[in-house]
Amino acid sequence: MNLEQFSHYSRDRVDRYLNDQLTQYDAADYLHEAMRYSLFNGGKRVRPMLVYATAELFSESNRLTDASAAAIESIHAYSLIHDDLPAMDDDDLRRGKPTCHIQFDEATAILTGDALQTFAFELLSASYNEIDTDNLADCKTRQLRLIRSLSRASGRFGMVTGQMIDLNNVDRSITLETLEKMHQHKTGALIRASVLMGAQSVGIEDQKILSQLDKYASAIGLAFQVQDDIIDITSDTQTLGKNQFSDSEANKPTYPKLLGLEGAREKANTLKQEAIEAISPFGDKAAPLIQLASYIISRNH
Amino acid sequence: MNLEQFSHYSRDRVDRYLNDQLTQYDAADYLHEAMRYSLFNGGKRVRPMLVYATAELFSESNRLTDASAAAIESIHAYSLIHDDLPAMDDDDLRRGKPTCHIQFDEATAILTGDALQTFAFELLSASYNEIDTDNLADCKTRQLRLIRSLSRASGRFGMVTGQMIDLNNVDRSITLETLEKMHQHKTGALIRASVLMGAQSVGIEDQKILSQLDKYASAIGLAFQVQDDIIDITSDTQTLGKNQFSDSEANKPTYPKLLGLEGAREKANTLKQEAIEAISPFGDKAAPLIQLASYIISRNH
Repeated sequence: MNLEQFSHYSRDRVDRYLNDQLTQYDAADYLHEAMRYSLFNGGKRVRPMLVYATAELFSESNRLTDASAAAIESIHAYSLIHDDLPAMDDDDLRRGKPTCHIQFDEATAILTGDALQTFAFELLSASYNEIDTDNLADCKTRQLRLIRSLSRASGRFGMVTGQMIDLNNVDRSITLETLEKMHQHKTGALIRASVLMGAQSVGIEDQKILSQLDKYASAIGLAFQVQDDIIDITSDTQTLGKNQFSDSEANKPTYPKLLGLEGAREKANTLKQEAIEAISPFGDKAAPLIQLASYIISRNH
Repeated sequence: MNLEQFSHYSRDRVDRYLNDQLTQYDAADYLHEAMRYSLFNGGKRVRPMLVYATAELFSESNRLTDASAAAIESIHAYSLIHDDLPAMDDDDLRRGKPTCHIQFDEATAILTGDALQTFAFELLSASYNEIDTDNLADCKTRQLRLIRSLSRASGRFGMVTGQMIDLNNVDRSITLETLEKMHQHKTGALIRASVLMGAQSVGIEDQKILSQLDKYASAIGLAFQVQDDIIDITSDTQTLGKNQFSDSEANKPTYPKLLGLEGAREKANTLKQEAIEAISPFGDKAAPLIQLASYIISRNH
């Protein structure tokens, strides 16, 4: 499959899985409406694609791969809701639609983000008996590894710390080192978790393999952020689905500010090459992941 | 041990455990400062006490009991931080101290709540090898059960749904049925999870035992809320550590409003009796849990 085909396949698959899981509930129609609004808002599903594409380097995706893709997307959705709140980035638009606190209200947005985080751990800890192993203990071992990976990537060792570094540096001039530390935590940790969990979902434990995959994930994670910064100053509001200059106006540090626009483009390109070198040894099945590395730095929204 | 001794024992134990876990970090000093501020704020640690007291009906508490107690307290702390936010209950005081968004700022409070939720799942999914079983698969089975219990109790099937029902009914007259549904989700679910997870941490799976324990937990959970409503109109701000009438002023439905003060006191007493009847068959070791049921409806803060 090429990137476009793989993107459709993985988006359909994770959307179907999320939809199935969200139909099982008792009360809280309103909460589920807001969860659905935020989960199904036209997101590119890059993280689920990474989960499936990495799993399928080794074998077929299974139910734990689905749960991992859905859990990571749910964590991503919660972080965007909370990021957009008035006390944080105060954004009214996300992918061209009103953000959660605009569409509903601020209290609902806080709670919806909270519920989406819990939902991720609910999905990963559910009972699974359809995975590609007859050994139930092995399934549980994988599930615990996945939960551990996600909690480390999204909490105080990962994403939340990145957001805190970000907040603490608004209106300050920061070094490239601090900027990279922020991005490694804020967005990089979850992208690396997507690749790691894809592998873990199909039982890959070999540290050498995981480390090679992590080189790829780290490079595309940073490339993604550099390109985001470039897009923020080169695309208009309509293409972007959020207000142009929303980051630079808030005096947030960006790569183009620190390296210049051309410097930022060179950096994105170097990272792309690093990513492709790291993933190419996995052979033909790495095609979507190789194409993804190129796509990341060529996209304009 | 009597209730006071058991309360000291369990508070010391969970505080030591939480403290140990929070010393392990790399970046994010500021985030950890806010996490500590909210976790160690003089809370009564009722939920950890329930976890330990239930576990010790059956055997000694182990590392999974510690992790369960700490995880539940962490979820409780996160929910209080988010509840106190301006967009939610807008409270400035909690247990006589500035709430998290007052002490730090609103963005930090949102992120600290988020991090404390993740922290709960981090603790439950960590590697444990010191529990009272030589069978590692058994340990993992218990961990997954605990994570499942906590995610169901705290997310869309539990606490968050209760908060959503609460929010949707401010300024409305509601039925006793809706009020109970709100409390069963908002506070009851986590109290029931405390008892359930205490038992699960020491390997109890027998549905008849778990169901008997749940009768106790459901009764004290509701009694706790009824008494909270009574305290809200009978105690002054200094005793309470938060502003008196803070709930009734916001036009929130309460038991005294629906049943009258005497009616609410009768209800609390009936629930206490139900709780004691349910837990007494567990014998002498149930003493702290029996005394807790009495304490809950006699406390004035």
